[in-house]
Amino acid sequence: MNLIVYLAGQIHDDWREQLKAQAEKRNLPLTFVGPQTDHDRSDQIGEAIIGEQPGDYYRDEAASAINNFRTELLIQKADVVIGLFGEKYRQWNTAMDVTRAISLNKPTIIIRPESLIHPLKELSNKANVTVETIEQALDVLAYVYE
Amino acid sequence: MNLIVYLAGQIHDDWREQLKAQAEKRNLPLTFVGPQTDHDRSDQIGEAIIGEQPGDYYRDEAASAINNFRTELLIQKADVVIGLFGEKYRQWNTAMDVTRAISLNKPTIIIRPESLIHPLKELSNKANVTVETIEQALDVLAYVYE
Amino acid sequence: MNLIVYLAGQIHDDWREQLKAQAEKRNLPLTFVGPQTDHDRSDQIGEAIIGEQPGDYYRDEAASAINNFRTELLIQKADVVIGLFGEKYRQWNTAMDVTRAISLNKPTIIIRPESLIHPLKELSNKANVTVETIEQALDVLAYVYE
Amino acid sequence: MNLIVYLAGQIHDDWREQLKAQAEKRNLPLTFVGPQTDHDRSDQIGEAIIGEQPGDYYRDEAASAINNFRTELLIQKADVVIGLFGEKYRQWNTAMDVTRAISLNKPTIIIRPESLIHPLKELSNKANVTVETIEQALDVLAYVYE
Amino acid sequence: MNLIVYLAGQIHDDWREQLKAQAEKRNLPLTFVGPQTDHDRSDQIGEAIIGEQPGDYYRDEAASAINNFRTELLIQKADVVIGLFGEKYRQWNTAMDVTRAISLNKPTIIIRPESLIHPLKELSNKANVTVETIEQALDVLAYVYE
Amino acid sequence: MNLIVYLAGQIHDDWREQLKAQAEKRNLPLTFVGPQTDHDRSDQIGEAIIGEQPGDYYRDEAASAINNFRTELLIQKADVVIGLFGEKYRQWNTAMDVTRAISLNKPTIIIRPESLIHPLKELSNKANVTVETIEQALDVLAYVYE
Amino acid sequence: MNLIVYLAGQIHDDWREQLKAQAEKRNLPLTFVGPQTDHDRSDQIGEAIIGEQPGDYYRDEAASAINNFRTELLIQKADVVIGLFGEKYRQWNTAMDVTRAISLNKPTIIIRPESLIHPLKELSNKANVTVETIEQALDVLAYVYE
Amino acid sequence: MNLIVYLAGQIHDDWREQLKAQAEKRNLPLTFVGPQTDHDRSDQIGEAIIGEQPGDYYRDEAASAINNFRTELLIQKADVVIGLFGEKYRQWNTAMDVTRAISLNKPTIIIRPESLIHPLKELSNKANVTVETIEQALDVLAYVYE
Repeated sequence: MNLIVYLAGQIHDDWREQLKAQAEKRNLPLTFVGPQTDHDRSDQIGEAIIGEQPGDYYRDEAASAINNFRTELLIQKADVVIGLFGEKYRQWNTAMDVTRAISLNKPTIIIRPESLIHPLKELSNKANVTVETIEQALDVLAYVYE
Repeated sequence: MNLIVYLAGQIHDDWREQLKAQAEKRNLPLTFVGPQTDHDRSDQIGEAIIGEQPGDYYRDEAASAINNFRTELLIQKADVVIGLFGEKYRQWNTAMDVTRAISLNKPTIIIRPESLIHPLKELSNKANVTVETIEQALDVLAYVYE
Repeated sequence: MNLIVYLAGQIHDDWREQLKAQAEKRNLPLTFVGPQTDHDRSDQIGEAIIGEQPGDYYRDEAASAINNFRTELLIQKADVVIGLFGEKYRQWNTAMDVTRAISLNKPTIIIRPESLIHPLKELSNKANVTVETIEQALDVLAYVYE
Repeated sequence: MNLIVYLAGQIHDDWREQLKAQAEKRNLPLTFVGPQTDHDRSDQIGEAIIGEQPGDYYRDEAASAINNFRTELLIQKADVVIGLFGEKYRQWNTAMDVTRAISLNKPTIIIRPESLIHPLKELSNKANVTVETIEQALDVLAYVYE
Repeated sequence: MNLIVYLAGQIHDDWREQLKAQAEKRNLPLTFVGPQTDHDRSDQIGEAIIGEQPGDYYRDEAASAINNFRTELLIQKADVVIGLFGEKYRQWNTAMDVTRAISLNKPTIIIRPESLIHPLKELSNKANVTVETIEQALDVLAYVYE
Repeated sequence: MNLIVYLAGQIHDDWREQLKAQAEKRNLPLTFVGPQTDHDRSDQIGEAIIGEQPGDYYRDEAASAINNFRTELLIQKADVVIGLFGEKYRQWNTAMDVTRAISLNKPTIIIRPESLIHPLKELSNKANVTVETIEQALDVLAYVYE
Repeated sequence: MNLIVYLAGQIHDDWREQLKAQAEKRNLPLTFVGPQTDHDRSDQIGEAIIGEQPGDYYRDEAASAINNFRTELLIQKADVVIGLFGEKYRQWNTAMDVTRAISLNKPTIIIRPESLIHPLKELSNKANVTVETIEQALDVLAYVYE
Repeated sequence: MNLIVYLAGQIHDDWREQLKAQAEKRNLPLTFVGPQTDHDRSDQIGEAIIGEQPGDYYRDEAASAINNFRTELLIQKADVVIGLFGEKYRQWNTAMDVTRAISLNKPTIIIRPESLIHPLKELSNKANVTVETIEQALDVLAYVYE
């Protein structure tokens, strides 16, 4: 049984590549999808497609519409959502994607460092499972196949 | 990941063929569906199947039921809906198809010329993304595969 | 049993006032809600609340978001939706509101002149009832109380 | 028509009281609900009800369950959700509440300072309306009653 | 706790009046709604509102749209649906109303004579409770208040 | 695009076989499913699986549960539902299956002889399309592939 | 804000009366509903309404349909569900009611003794809050009004 | 037509293996999924993935979250759910899984010994079919393919 996994979360490091590599090593039949991870591309996609906008606010508006189009489409296609929170960023998109997934009844895993236990406690309680590492998230997925 | 795209909108020119041709050039794994685009066939389908009706109103009633059957079925099958509005026609079907798609949580793109910004502003705000050209709509779809 | 009725449709004449007056004469226990009917106010509401925008497109964007907020809220509250189409305007908002209502399973009545039978045939088929006059729409509502 | 408004957002200042006071001045028929705004009470509610826990993580777990119980119940009761983001905090709960409301089709307003346009752009695009001040949020609500 | 009860079923005798009279005797806090029970009015309502039609088929079409408008609206308002089947008629409307109610998760009671056990067995199995008399149906409702 | 079609309706003649044969001749990519069409098997399935029951009523109860299990499962799998009504039987199962399909938003076609126009008028109005012959129902399906 | 609270759980002691008495002392604006708590009445309700059945199995069948009618109706009316598990009984109805409530997105509280932590761990994880005493359940409800 | 069948129920004997073996003998095109059936693994999975917990209660909490993640995911994937209740255990998870499945409109079969008729009567009434043996459950599934 192949599962589609949406990887929500920060796009400032290569955690998705690490996770995919480990999933492959374990031979888990998973297909991964996620948001645009090229940060500049993500910020500029509105102007890149629709053309120059009259200022930053409008540039952000144009980009966000297209990013949300992609995200909503892929979360709907996913069987599972994993959301990773890091220490540096506010990552409201991650909170949005995770809550959207939970509201669509998608089984959801949160990965967050110990330092974020307190600020994420309500979201963590709403998700199905919360872990601290990529390995643990894959352990949870692997458990489905045992 | 193959996506099914429903192409709502006017049936008086060949915009669907242009869009399909460009999608093929870009090698996007998209399957296109849509309403009956032979205008006469669409208007006569009721009488063609059910038999002659006692006047235009009843001819339209008979045709619309069968057109709606097709449209509802294919919108439900679609992953994405693109609705194109042109300047000449009232195209209430397009507005209906786009709103139906949005209500079913289908990610939706509107294509409309600059001249229609004002009359379409509320529908445009409700859709995920609004663009002005077929190329831009395909840019948005291509972005999902980046 | 009091019913809330959302009156979708053109805001260029006083059809809503006529309908309300007739409903009152008939003593129907109906509460009417609807979109902003002051056309200028509706177009300017974005800038009126959020401030000046860099051009017409952005002015429309700002206004449409607030108009949609109002419309979605009131359609959700409504038990019934009546949508009136006139001959002069494209009224895509009316098509949008009527389709939104149908998708939310709200019983829906369309009022349209004979001249619009053909272009509205699919939307008309999707609605519960289509009539030509305000009186007929109230006849349908009155029938619920017989 | 009385509306119930859920006030999501930070609990470190008195913005809710300001908003309620202004709503009262304008005679808007609104009933306000929201999360526990006594920060200490919110953090300690788990231990206060269920008893001492073996460490901070478990204290947070116990508190979050009860906070989520309250929040889910009141968001379901609400007709409208307003979410305010301030500059100081990560406020993932606010992002969660706003996304939950949007997923339940509750018309939603975000209030955020100009400085947060960029990090909130996707969530802002998903909400119905985004404004910068409490006054503007009430302007939007007042518009429903015009 | 007042409950709204929709009374689906044949309109050829006065079973609804009997049921209401007995409910009143028992002081059950129930409000009853249902379809148009004046058979001629029900058959003629289309032409009565929309005007003469070109034949029986179109007369039926016009009437059924308005009858369905009423029925859908009142079933949505109901907390409970009771459907009575008699021996004489095919009563497909009753089967339709009962199935619609079940699909909307409305608790549903069927009343049918012993002679109809066999042809109604699948619908009866789908409903919550099946009884043979009006008294028994009220017994079930009264049980909710014990 | 292959479609699954559920064939609701009477099980006393071979209309399903005729319809399938014609669909094959037209090379329509349709997969057909439906209820148990061996009437005796359908009536006896409860006792056949669960064992002898204390009388006809209980025999019917046992059979109906298993028939409904099959029907619900296959209607959920279907993309389209066709319901055929004949003149001889009350066929409440057909009315139930068609209404269930409509409530699940499955595009639905009714086939019924002219003689049943009147008693089926409300159900017919609720379905997407109503025709009189098997050929016409296949014409409607074929139209989706044009 | 008045809330309706469904009290699922064993009917062999007076825990509901204790809970109601304490709620009254605290002046909480709660209305309580629940299953039939007269055990004999609950077991005999089928035969009491429908008449004698041919054995225990059929007696249970008849009773369960009517009990489920009541339960489904009242859970749908409830804003909150509290489910109490005691040590003596298997109480599958309680597990059913609690899961039904969770599936309907009703905020749900489980009360269970320490001895049942292990067998109830999955259901407890699915509910919003789990406590050990009636007082604690009311503490959670009272927290909503703080 | 291949169907996915979720096997809810006790994990203390090999009933799933027996059922799978018989399904294979009958050549039924069924794919089986279910909960973790290694009891120790199921109880320890929380600590195995997340690390040691401060006591039994927290160990159970950690395990239940991961078990529920698996169960929810696989029930959503399933077309049919079979729940087996044995005489020895309280099996609240089985009641939870079965009720969850019913609430998601999954056709559901309960297998239970005669001795459990009474305590399971309400859940049994809510499921589509109840039988006493594995063979009978497969008979019901086989009937879908007749």
